Amino acid sequence: MKQFVRFKMGDRVSYGQITPEGVYRIEGSPFEDPKPLDLVGPVGDLDLLTPVEPTKIVCIGLNYREHAAETGATVPEEPVMFIKPLTTLLDPGGEIVLPPQSSRVDYEGELGIVIGREIFRPDEVDARRAIFGYVCANDVTARDLQRKDGQWTRGKGFDTFCPVGPYLNADVDLGDRRIETRLNGETKQSSTLGDMVFDADYLVHFVASVMTLYPGDIIMTGTPSGIGPMSAGDTVQVEIEGFGVLENPVTSRE
Amino acid sequence: MKQFVRFKMGDRVSYGQITPEGVYRIEGSPFEDPKPLDLVGPVGDLDLLTPVEPTKIVCIGLNYREHAAETGATVPEEPVMFIKPLTTLLDPGGEIVLPPQSSRVDYEGELGIVIGREIFRPDEVDARRAIFGYVCANDVTARDLQRKDGQWTRGKGFDTFCPVGPYLNADVDLGDRRIETRLNGETKQSSTLGDMVFDADYLVHFVASVMTLYPGDIIMTGTPSGIGPMSAGDTVQVEIEGFGVLENPVTSRE
Repeated sequence: MKQFVRFKMGDRVSYGQITPEGVYRIEGSPFEDPKPLDLVGPVGDLDLLTPVEPTKIVCIGLNYREHAAETGATVPEEPVMFIKPLTTLLDPGGEIVLPPQSSRVDYEGELGIVIGREIFRPDEVDARRAIFGYVCANDVTARDLQRKDGQWTRGKGFDTFCPVGPYLNADVDLGDRRIETRLNGETKQSSTLGDMVFDADYLVHFVASVMTLYPGDIIMTGTPSGIGPMSAGDTVQVEIEGFGVLENPVTSRE
Repeated sequence: MKQFVRFKMGDRVSYGQITPEGVYRIEGSPFEDPKPLDLVGPVGDLDLLTPVEPTKIVCIGLNYREHAAETGATVPEEPVMFIKPLTTLLDPGGEIVLPPQSSRVDYEGELGIVIGREIFRPDEVDARRAIFGYVCANDVTARDLQRKDGQWTRGKGFDTFCPVGPYLNADVDLGDRRIETRLNGETKQSSTLGDMVFDADYLVHFVASVMTLYPGDIIMTGTPSGIGPMSAGDTVQVEIEGFGVLENPVTSRE
């Protein structure tokens, strides 16, 4: 497995690769034959940003059977998709801001698929090959507005509602890893990726049959059961086994 | 009123401004104090592109009373929003491609609002000031998939499903202009902008209360009654009085 990060040092933003000696800054992006430059230190000392810069974030709803049941929905025949605007993106450690319009904002821990090459209407083999890696993500949702609108875009579309990171995990088999969401250290969601209704390869095939995908684009694969609200002052963590821990504080200040 | 275009000449893409003598190429973009450069000829001779390059396209559903009625929906208390990915953008004259997944693809002629400055949670006065101009647009929709999914993103999200142009119309009062959609020359939709449930200023205020908007971002304001299907070989036109005619052929070839 390779693990990439993106970080800011002074005014300079770079991609880096984690090695046993520390993080090497790389030339260009992880998608274009990255070449190591200088060693910049331990990953814990870096000011980490979202590990990718997508041109779009496509999300899948109701993709774990138990979560569909807890929301009173049935599992759909085909994936149900929606889009989060890029303005939702939030760095690891960044503050999730609760908007005044909502009185219930939930965490939704999710696996994010990161695309590595431009694809449109690929067959299933090319769809699998287009997957570059995976990230931990949080599909933060204003549940009251999601229910009121019917369309999910507003409830899921506020600035800061898409924390992603800390690492871009590449050259790795997904397997049946555990995915957990913790609120103030207490486990709230705990499932495994094998419980997804539609798997990662199929989701890439499905989404790219509608729209062209580019390197860095993210497909969010839905959340397991155990969704629940967050309050100002909370800290939320999303962990996928081996893929790092995405931690974000919650605030109501703008 | 000022009218801007974006065009390609050889490998060079530029913005231009329409004048009585023809189109002047401008330095930079219309949003940043544009300065005229050289005269490039009559607008009819140019290879026109979408007149803006948005970072997002936010759409409003059910915003004309008669259209809500024809779809069997009630007019919502608040605007209902969804997002079209940037991969839907199509130049004036470009081909709308009917996807194999759908057996009914409809035109939806719409007014698009173009944002001129970065805004987040503006008051209503600042929201109005942030409007740079307006475009003709077509919110092309795979009606069968929109109905099947419940969420509208897939049905409205195919590549080529968002023709925009030909002009960016700035420094102009919107007023109660006529909006028409014609299929093969026959008028299918005909209404006036005054029939919108939520007006342009309010929509900008509403959307920017959720997400940061940037120069070039587009808010599509909903379609009037008269929606209907298109077939390969058709030509569709959207005209808003004084704002130009957006024309696109329809094909089933990729």
